[in-house]
Amino acid sequence: MRDLYHGQLEAIVDDLVALAHAVQRATHDATGALLTADAALAERVIAEDAAIDQKREEIEERTFELMALQQPVATDLRMLVAGLRMVAELERMGDLAVHIAKVARMRYPDRAVPPALHDTVCEMAETTEEMVGTAAEVIENRDVEVARRLEVDDERIDRMRRSILETLLSDDWAGGVEPAIDIALLGRYYERLADHAVSIGRRLVYLVTGDKPAHVG
Amino acid sequence: MRDLYHGQLEAIVDDLVALAHAVQRATHDATGALLTADAALAERVIAEDAAIDQKREEIEERTFELMALQQPVATDLRMLVAGLRMVAELERMGDLAVHIAKVARMRYPDRAVPPALHDTVCEMAETTEEMVGTAAEVIENRDVEVARRLEVDDERIDRMRRSILETLLSDDWAGGVEPAIDIALLGRYYERLADHAVSIGRRLVYLVTGDKPAHVG
Repeated sequence: MRDLYHGQLEAIVDDLVALAHAVQRATHDATGALLTADAALAERVIAEDAAIDQKREEIEERTFELMALQQPVATDLRMLVAGLRMVAELERMGDLAVHIAKVARMRYPDRAVPPALHDTVCEMAETTEEMVGTAAEVIENRDVEVARRLEVDDERIDRMRRSILETLLSDDWAGGVEPAIDIALLGRYYERLADHAVSIGRRLVYLVTGDKPAHVG
Repeated sequence: MRDLYHGQLEAIVDDLVALAHAVQRATHDATGALLTADAALAERVIAEDAAIDQKREEIEERTFELMALQQPVATDLRMLVAGLRMVAELERMGDLAVHIAKVARMRYPDRAVPPALHDTVCEMAETTEEMVGTAAEVIENRDVEVARRLEVDDERIDRMRRSILETLLSDDWAGGVEPAIDIALLGRYYERLADHAVSIGRRLVYLVTGDKPAHVG
């Protein structure tokens, strides 16, 4: 009985990892759609979000069943509740990728990101995508050191977002209001994606070490 | 033993309601700071967020204790897990109020909201604040009809946000890039606050009726 139980627990962790990889792909494709003005790719990200939502529901239902049938205590209970929170964060991250894809779709056939900001937005997007991948790795391997790396990456994201805002507000900015609003919101979406990756990392550190993080978002 | 248990369960619900009211106050004060350029009020919202974070932790810890000691099944277990999610949403809503207060602080002594947009932003802020109050009421009274009202309010929020974006992007907009970015982000913060209120309402409907909502964010 306990072996079946631990098998079910491991299956939930595996599904969380797979979901994190699906979110990483959505982030990657949304960025591709954004930077190359690829409307078909944007549509695919938007359409495929339903599968992420569906997966979230399945993981939640199986977690509740496990909780109700097995009455886990202490560590296992905290792990299952942490899993419920991570799955909610991953679904939210999928929504943010959809927001990015929708900006690409709205501006098609134009590109939403003007040439002057292409490199910085690209770097911010790539760092975010890496962080989502790191979150998947952290869930899979429960590696506290890797989880802590996310904090350093997040500082880079914050610096890039500030740099983008400075460009938009400088006297040199001749791009007008519409791209400025697009870019400000895009910066926010990537920042939130990165925040969720950090939050997943902090939950993991707390589960493994018992060190309550200063703030889990 | 069971009576003590239900007393503890009710105490957690009471604390959730109190936390929702604290978030409603934070939203109200952040809006006041924003619309009247009141730096002291903005500082208070930012400082008082620590108490919201602290309250979240307390509610979480007590929920875990209750889960571990009482081994609740079925309905009670789902209610406690829903409570854990609601408390996380409420804390996040407090963070969004802080973001609004920080825009007010950043632009002080100027007002971040230009006169042309004052009324629409004010209406959006008031609707959001009401929705947070409704979420508190929904948690307290488990009233499905009131919870469903939040969906209608949310449609109004979406319309107001679109109207604000149209103003920013119209040829008449002479406010420049900086206020446009501020307002676009503020619109996003209020929209997310409202989304969380809707999400709390949907969780409640699901708990009471068993009707799985199309999407709980």
